[in-house]
Amino acid sequence: MDKNQFALTPPMGWNSYDYYNTEVTEAQVRENAEFMAAHLKPFGWEYVVIDIQWYAKDAGSQSSRYQYIPFGQLVMDEYSRLLPDLVRFPSSAGGRGFKPLADYIHSLGLKFGIHVMRGIPRQAAHSHMGILGSNVRADEIADPSSICPWNPDMYGVRPEMPASQTYYDSIYALYADWGVDFIKCDDICREDAASAHAEIAMIHRAIMKTGRPIVLSLSPGPAKIAEAQFYAENANMWRITDDFWDTWPLLKDMFRRCELWQGKTAPGCYPDCDMLPGGKIGGCFGEKAERDSGFTKDEQITMMTLWCIFGAPLMIGAKLPGMDEFTLKLLTNRDVLHLLRNGRGARQLVRNEEEAVWTAYDAGNDCGYLAMFNLSDEERAVSCWIGQAAAAGGKAYTGGPAVELWTGKETSFGSGCAAALVPAHGARLFRY
Amino acid sequence: MDKNQFALTPPMGWNSYDYYNTEVTEAQVRENAEFMAAHLKPFGWEYVVIDIQWYAKDAGSQSSRYQYIPFGQLVMDEYSRLLPDLVRFPSSAGGRGFKPLADYIHSLGLKFGIHVMRGIPRQAAHSHMGILGSNVRADEIADPSSICPWNPDMYGVRPEMPASQTYYDSIYALYADWGVDFIKCDDICREDAASAHAEIAMIHRAIMKTGRPIVLSLSPGPAKIAEAQFYAENANMWRITDDFWDTWPLLKDMFRRCELWQGKTAPGCYPDCDMLPGGKIGGCFGEKAERDSGFTKDEQITMMTLWCIFGAPLMIGAKLPGMDEFTLKLLTNRDVLHLLRNGRGARQLVRNEEEAVWTAYDAGNDCGYLAMFNLSDEERAVSCWIGQAAAAGGKAYTGGPAVELWTGKETSFGSGCAAALVPAHGARLFRY
Amino acid sequence: MDKNQFALTPPMGWNSYDYYNTEVTEAQVRENAEFMAAHLKPFGWEYVVIDIQWYAKDAGSQSSRYQYIPFGQLVMDEYSRLLPDLVRFPSSAGGRGFKPLADYIHSLGLKFGIHVMRGIPRQAAHSHMGILGSNVRADEIADPSSICPWNPDMYGVRPEMPASQTYYDSIYALYADWGVDFIKCDDICREDAASAHAEIAMIHRAIMKTGRPIVLSLSPGPAKIAEAQFYAENANMWRITDDFWDTWPLLKDMFRRCELWQGKTAPGCYPDCDMLPGGKIGGCFGEKAERDSGFTKDEQITMMTLWCIFGAPLMIGAKLPGMDEFTLKLLTNRDVLHLLRNGRGARQLVRNEEEAVWTAYDAGNDCGYLAMFNLSDEERAVSCWIGQAAAAGGKAYTGGPAVELWTGKETSFGSGCAAALVPAHGARLFRY
Amino acid sequence: MDKNQFALTPPMGWNSYDYYNTEVTEAQVRENAEFMAAHLKPFGWEYVVIDIQWYAKDAGSQSSRYQYIPFGQLVMDEYSRLLPDLVRFPSSAGGRGFKPLADYIHSLGLKFGIHVMRGIPRQAAHSHMGILGSNVRADEIADPSSICPWNPDMYGVRPEMPASQTYYDSIYALYADWGVDFIKCDDICREDAASAHAEIAMIHRAIMKTGRPIVLSLSPGPAKIAEAQFYAENANMWRITDDFWDTWPLLKDMFRRCELWQGKTAPGCYPDCDMLPGGKIGGCFGEKAERDSGFTKDEQITMMTLWCIFGAPLMIGAKLPGMDEFTLKLLTNRDVLHLLRNGRGARQLVRNEEEAVWTAYDAGNDCGYLAMFNLSDEERAVSCWIGQAAAAGGKAYTGGPAVELWTGKETSFGSGCAAALVPAHGARLFRY
Repeated sequence: MDKNQFALTPPMGWNSYDYYNTEVTEAQVRENAEFMAAHLKPFGWEYVVIDIQWYAKDAGSQSSRYQYIPFGQLVMDEYSRLLPDLVRFPSSAGGRGFKPLADYIHSLGLKFGIHVMRGIPRQAAHSHMGILGSNVRADEIADPSSICPWNPDMYGVRPEMPASQTYYDSIYALYADWGVDFIKCDDICREDAASAHAEIAMIHRAIMKTGRPIVLSLSPGPAKIAEAQFYAENANMWRITDDFWDTWPLLKDMFRRCELWQGKTAPGCYPDCDMLPGGKIGGCFGEKAERDSGFTKDEQITMMTLWCIFGAPLMIGAKLPGMDEFTLKLLTNRDVLHLLRNGRGARQLVRNEEEAVWTAYDAGNDCGYLAMFNLSDEERAVSCWIGQAAAAGGKAYTGGPAVELWTGKETSFGSGCAAALVPAHGARLFRY
Repeated sequence: MDKNQFALTPPMGWNSYDYYNTEVTEAQVRENAEFMAAHLKPFGWEYVVIDIQWYAKDAGSQSSRYQYIPFGQLVMDEYSRLLPDLVRFPSSAGGRGFKPLADYIHSLGLKFGIHVMRGIPRQAAHSHMGILGSNVRADEIADPSSICPWNPDMYGVRPEMPASQTYYDSIYALYADWGVDFIKCDDICREDAASAHAEIAMIHRAIMKTGRPIVLSLSPGPAKIAEAQFYAENANMWRITDDFWDTWPLLKDMFRRCELWQGKTAPGCYPDCDMLPGGKIGGCFGEKAERDSGFTKDEQITMMTLWCIFGAPLMIGAKLPGMDEFTLKLLTNRDVLHLLRNGRGARQLVRNEEEAVWTAYDAGNDCGYLAMFNLSDEERAVSCWIGQAAAAGGKAYTGGPAVELWTGKETSFGSGCAAALVPAHGARLFRY
Repeated sequence: MDKNQFALTPPMGWNSYDYYNTEVTEAQVRENAEFMAAHLKPFGWEYVVIDIQWYAKDAGSQSSRYQYIPFGQLVMDEYSRLLPDLVRFPSSAGGRGFKPLADYIHSLGLKFGIHVMRGIPRQAAHSHMGILGSNVRADEIADPSSICPWNPDMYGVRPEMPASQTYYDSIYALYADWGVDFIKCDDICREDAASAHAEIAMIHRAIMKTGRPIVLSLSPGPAKIAEAQFYAENANMWRITDDFWDTWPLLKDMFRRCELWQGKTAPGCYPDCDMLPGGKIGGCFGEKAERDSGFTKDEQITMMTLWCIFGAPLMIGAKLPGMDEFTLKLLTNRDVLHLLRNGRGARQLVRNEEEAVWTAYDAGNDCGYLAMFNLSDEERAVSCWIGQAAAAGGKAYTGGPAVELWTGKETSFGSGCAAALVPAHGARLFRY
Repeated sequence: MDKNQFALTPPMGWNSYDYYNTEVTEAQVRENAEFMAAHLKPFGWEYVVIDIQWYAKDAGSQSSRYQYIPFGQLVMDEYSRLLPDLVRFPSSAGGRGFKPLADYIHSLGLKFGIHVMRGIPRQAAHSHMGILGSNVRADEIADPSSICPWNPDMYGVRPEMPASQTYYDSIYALYADWGVDFIKCDDICREDAASAHAEIAMIHRAIMKTGRPIVLSLSPGPAKIAEAQFYAENANMWRITDDFWDTWPLLKDMFRRCELWQGKTAPGCYPDCDMLPGGKIGGCFGEKAERDSGFTKDEQITMMTLWCIFGAPLMIGAKLPGMDEFTLKLLTNRDVLHLLRNGRGARQLVRNEEEAVWTAYDAGNDCGYLAMFNLSDEERAVSCWIGQAAAAGGKAYTGGPAVELWTGKETSFGSGCAAALVPAHGARLFRY
């Protein structure tokens, strides 16, 4: 089994976090999955991912004080393995875990994913619980000094203890039994979590042992560029940013991050720009009233254009049911999504305070792409010497039509210079 | 009540750690106290301090793997307050805590101290235990991200929660009830424990509320010089070094630390050089075979001379019963201990790679002190222009005899220059 | 000769920088000195110090572009020794250097000082000039990688070359010949000038060799607390701050710095808070129009009170002729200046965001001092438990009158608590 | 003109530094060039590069004290432009500069390069020399605080002064007149030379203005990965390492550096691993006796294999005349050099403490490459799952012969796993 076969193109799906925070229920997951099956699946969207704390009782009930209730009750089996909260996920009753829900997702022709934290539950360590397939107990593999600075649920495990691998094997075997297709593993991918390095390798081994092609996504980020090869050997996605939300400074900064990570994308290996916070989001944050994305339409086009030409995974953050027309169109542009899946050799040609230009190439269809971004606060003519695209390994422009993929309008670049009038914070994406 | 009245001269006593590690028993404490009462008390020694993990069951039983058993069982009352392990401290049965032992220590004319870690037991937080005098529970004041990097017992508390103060009040009230005279609070005094700052102030307030003059000693160290005033306002002692053991590089380095902290000593305020690892030590470390201090006799003289002229607290690390003659003499030199208690204005006059010279002044008896240290590896004539002592605020030398306090020999400095032949790593201490 | 005899109390004087920047002339120096002799000398003011670039031709002529003209012409003799610019210091003609001006200053009963940069002129190195008393040339002792980041005049010297000491000896011999009483040596006292450490010792040796008691003042600062003893062994003053100017945040921050350095003051050894930017200043900065100090009157009282109770050197930054009545009174309060010269054991008793309290003791007159500062932005009653002063080594208050030294008003502290209503950013200074 | 057209494949040549240090003469350059023309040119070697201080009189004459004589005399014209030292480069007499030597190199069918330091000569600034085409003088554009920490010749220039660009234009115009084809610009490419960023862009502009395709190589390194795009826009080569010499730890570490920079190579854009210190080197270092490279033969094979599959520029460090047979063969293996020029998509497949594996693909000839390195200290069988190469974008192995390019031996990989017995520190390089 080769982990690079698990996701030959960037994974596309939906993640519960941006709308539901820690509180998503089975009914909500089903609703979103049904919407995806009906409206998005034909365009390639397939993953339905439940984010953090599906195992936490009363999650969200003290949200004015904590995002994660400290020392709250986590649902576990006798082997220190987290199980879904029965109140929010009633189909997991009788020890069936996420299997019924995964089966339902699969019945829609979709794939099922969950979020987990690195390590073993603190409560399992303090209660000296067992580990499936081992005589060693949770308290012996948990490292009391290896904690997550922002979430109180887990202790990291001791890499030098063979039972740590046994524990990871036991939980990933359970996930495989449930039918999990995608794991977003958190607290494992950032400069200040040193011991996490060994845990990434342990988790990769555990997945390989399951025999199930479970996509492994690492969070939070920013990942370390000097570890790029290591991530590529052990995971399918790794976040190149801390949490991404709907503000322009974060989006503008993503151009710097993509510049750094360009050339590190390959089948099965995806630097990850985090979820797409468009549409309706924030339903279970703050005042618990959903809000529209803070991005303008042009900013959302910029976001989609960058993610797709860079080749980043696409994970929708919005609540899907009731999605507005603009957002739906943004996410279902067949030409743009074709670029995401078939573009190769993505390269940044220009980046400065005012603009950015990227190119990519689709060898199968022998067509080139040119994305022109206006990073300034006013409308602006962005231009680029078209020979650069070829020089950077993209396709040479030899005359002929160029189609702007968001508007469908055809144009021609003339002899030497591609140019476009681009609105503030907006983008134009050409195929030629 | 003024905390600077609690210890008008540097505290002198014995601490269980250097010999007994985490494993000391009531019987051993009594033995050591009895020796102190018989042999050391006449010279000013009075504190008997039980160091870390007196509340931990089975402490030391897995010492080949851990110094502190992770997630081991801690003895607590229903209010999250640690209690002595009954196996090692049988007199604490029946909820009497350390009171019987403290009473016995007091009956010998001595004072009683214990070590505690900053914060509240992790197990109390995970078990949602109560807090005396509050409706708030342990899990609400414990901060799951505030841990000690080297000991697994506690979580720091949240300074913004009033119940955190209530908790500290409740444990110090208990210590006062027991008759505790001295608290060595650990994991609270070093650059990398930021939140500890607030906890120092909370503990000081808790002590003030008890009405009992409990000396507060902060560990581990090195304390921050920029916080010197803060320590002086809230504590009686603060370690200026990480753990000190019996190797020459650590002793030599103490001269650098004392230089930095000179002038910061005042009644009730003592920069602390840690325990004196002379005599028999290490009984419950490593192979659990006691060993003689790794210091040469000259190095031990250097250590005592530096601690006494600098004005540091003296805490014996050795097992007391069976103490050898040399060590006993070292610790009971009345003239040297007089300097410790009456010296003022201690100043370093010289420090380089080869030698150091310190001076101090005893106004009550109008006598000056001059300590000459040989930091080099060969015998050496150390000299010092005697006018410097006066210039540095010490006593001018006007001729007349100078007594070397370790040998009792009388000499005279001549007109301008004090000089002495000092063995490698050794010291000479003159009163004039 | 003992450098601690050079300045038994904190030096008091005037420095040309805050008003004249790099441009002061002989006539201006004389004017200021004459004012000092007439109005300030009776109160203890005595040093007249010419600050940076007295050796630079055309200094200030390109002030809109540079404070220091890069690669400008420096006046030197054949031995790489800087000489006064003849245009600005005409009395130095004929190779007489600063001797005529120093003589005049001395004739007024005052003392004469100059500023120098660490090292040897770059131009001397590039021109391979000689060194008095050595066959080695300037290019051999200059270290091309040892520069001042903010001034282009000099290279540091190579400590391993004996001729570096010879060079320093030669310039300090010249300064002694001129009659210099005070050297402010710059670019030599801060964390990022590592090689400067060795140069401090070389300069101290050079001064000792002159046989003239030249006070040595180190700049810029902040000096390193861990080097406190080293400074005390080699210099008379060392700046504990970068340049100090007339803004409240800098003044408030000085309380933090004084806290850190308290207890490090002794006869001949003075942590230095920099010049006093009161009165008329800034005459040769920016638009070259003099301005009134940006400090309010209360802030100026705070500044003088802090400097005097802390025991810092006092160097007036203002232009002296035409000084206003308020400033003159501020600088000539005999009671306050008596504290400066006779106070001992200065201690900070309180410091928080809103207030600070300091105490000191005058043993000769057996009186205590209590300074109460309001660091907040509104009038405030500052209070202090009077026993603290005694506990901190100051004088106990036993009833009787307390005089506020700025107003002369008499009060009484009552039994336990000294209290005063203090205006925003202001101070009250009591003698009892 | 497009700088990416200047060097469509990695530059190959010889550099004087590793043998001649600062002292190379015209006669030696000619000798080396002649050897290259006779023996290496047919294999693609073409650049002859004179390294540091060709403008310095007496360079090397004080080598026991300095590598670079501080404040030594530099040859310049009236416009602050460095010229060759006449003693070492006699053909430059009469203001002809390097033109005669360049002409000779060109007559051999080779290309000519020189090393320069960032900035303008210090002596030009101190002497207020002119700048060609500007009224501004050297002292106005030189920044006295912008120095090279290890070489005393230059000051960086002020980017905000237009005359700084004029100066760079003037020197690159001169180099173009001379016929220079390659510039190695030093002190410009490393984390601690912040201002160098602007100077890189100025130099690129200056080269574009000359109309001559001068390859720009940046030193010293390590370059910053976050600046990769910036280097690619302005230069042709940038060092990813500090100076590389003939010791195994440096060679082993190069694998880490190549891992970091993989995917950043493109036509005209080359991460640079520094010169090849094989053969006879060190002739003008230390005792000034040439020595054989400290690398074993296997290590040299490893070096060449890594540089060629990674696609790094090849610059011979050895003295060429009298080159031994082994070294000559190492540098003239047509198959290996074909890989250097035609390999694309170089990827590291494996790296750990013991081994490394790289792959690359030659689309024109549809052949793949697999390099297997033994990084351990003992002979070792290195193996690699052959499917990885294809997965990483290389060529799939479909059976058939694989040729080891250093030995010419043919083998077959079998179905799934390429394997080879590789000597300690050695390499095997297969084409399939």
